[in-house]
Amino acid sequence: MARWQPNAPERLALAALELFEERGYENTTVIGIAERAGLTKSTFFRHFPDKREVLFGSGTMTDLLVGGIATAPPDVPPLEVVAHALEVIGREAFPAHRREFAARRRAVIAAHPDLREREALKGIGLTAALIEALENRGVPTLTARVTAELSALAWKIAYERWSAPTNTDEFGPLARRTLTEVRIAAEFRG
Amino acid sequence: MARWQPNAPERLALAALELFEERGYENTTVIGIAERAGLTKSTFFRHFPDKREVLFGSGTMTDLLVGGIATAPPDVPPLEVVAHALEVIGREAFPAHRREFAARRRAVIAAHPDLREREALKGIGLTAALIEALENRGVPTLTARVTAELSALAWKIAYERWSAPTNTDEFGPLARRTLTEVRIAAEFRG
Repeated sequence: MARWQPNAPERLALAALELFEERGYENTTVIGIAERAGLTKSTFFRHFPDKREVLFGSGTMTDLLVGGIATAPPDVPPLEVVAHALEVIGREAFPAHRREFAARRRAVIAAHPDLREREALKGIGLTAALIEALENRGVPTLTARVTAELSALAWKIAYERWSAPTNTDEFGPLARRTLTEVRIAAEFRG
Repeated sequence: MARWQPNAPERLALAALELFEERGYENTTVIGIAERAGLTKSTFFRHFPDKREVLFGSGTMTDLLVGGIATAPPDVPPLEVVAHALEVIGREAFPAHRREFAARRRAVIAAHPDLREREALKGIGLTAALIEALENRGVPTLTARVTAELSALAWKIAYERWSAPTNTDEFGPLARRTLTEVRIAAEFRG
C-alpha cells in the first residue's frame, strides 16, 4: 500500500504542465509525470484516468459549482445565483497565486487538439451540472438552459481575463462584471 | 480507381445507423458499414475519417451555416441573421422525409458515449464557425459570442422538436419560433 501523498493531484498537474511545456504533450508519459512529481504511476491513476485528464482537476470544479449554486441566497435571479457560485469558485480554486499556473495551463491546452477537446467536453459537463443545479432551485428548464449557456460563456471570458499577465483583479468580482456584460449583450435591444 | 458512387455519404450513414441499431456501435466495423451500403472500405474513408464520424455529415452543415449567414439580408439584427441561416439549413438538410432518420439517429447517439462526445465537439465547431461568420458581417465580438451560444441552444432544442414523432412542422419555422423563445428567456426581466 502506498502511503498518503499530500497534494498529489496538484503536484501531478504541475509536473505534467512542466513536461508538456518542455517536451510537448505527445512526448510525455504518465510514468514521466509521476516521476517528475516524486510519485508513482499507481498514485497517478488513483487521481486521473489518463494523461489527457491531468490538467482538469478531479471533479472538484463540478462540486464547487453545484455547492455554490445550492448555497446562493433564496429568491435571487438566476444570473445572481451563478455570480454567487463563481465567487465561491474564485475563492476556493482560483486564488491570486494560481494566476501564473493558469496562464501556462491555458497556453499548453491551446497548443494541443487532444487537450482542447478534453477542455471542451469538461465545459459541456459543467454546463449540464449547472442546468441541473438551477432546476433543483426551481428555475424553469428553458431559463436554466439559457442561464447555463450564458454563464459558461461569461466564465470562459472571465478565466481568460483573470489569467492574463497584466491582470491584478480577483476572479470573483471579475466574473460578476463579465456576467453583467454578457447579460447586457443578450438583451438585443437598440 | 473506384467509380463515382452517387449519394455515398448518405448510403453509408443509413447503413451505419441500421448496424448501430441492430448490433450496437461497438460491434459494428467500418467494413461492415461499407458492405451493408454496397460500397468499399476505401469509399468509406474518402468520406469519413473514422466510424465515429459517419453520422455527422462531412462538413456540409458548417458550409450551409456559413453560407446562410453570409446571404442573410443586410442590416438585420444578429438573431434574425441566424433565423435566416436556420431556414436555409432546414430546406437543404432537414426536409420532412428525413425526420424519421433524424429521430433514429438521435436515439443511437444518445445510447453511446463516443457518439455523444463527437456530437458535442461538432456543436462546438459549429458555434465557432457561427461566431466567425457573424464577425465577418461586422457583429461585435461579444454580441457574436452571445448570439452563437443562444443560437446553438435554440438549434438543439428545435432539432429535438422537429425530429419528435408527433411533429409535423418544418424545421425552418420551428427554429425561428424556438429562437424567439430563447431570446425572451434571455431577457431576465420581471
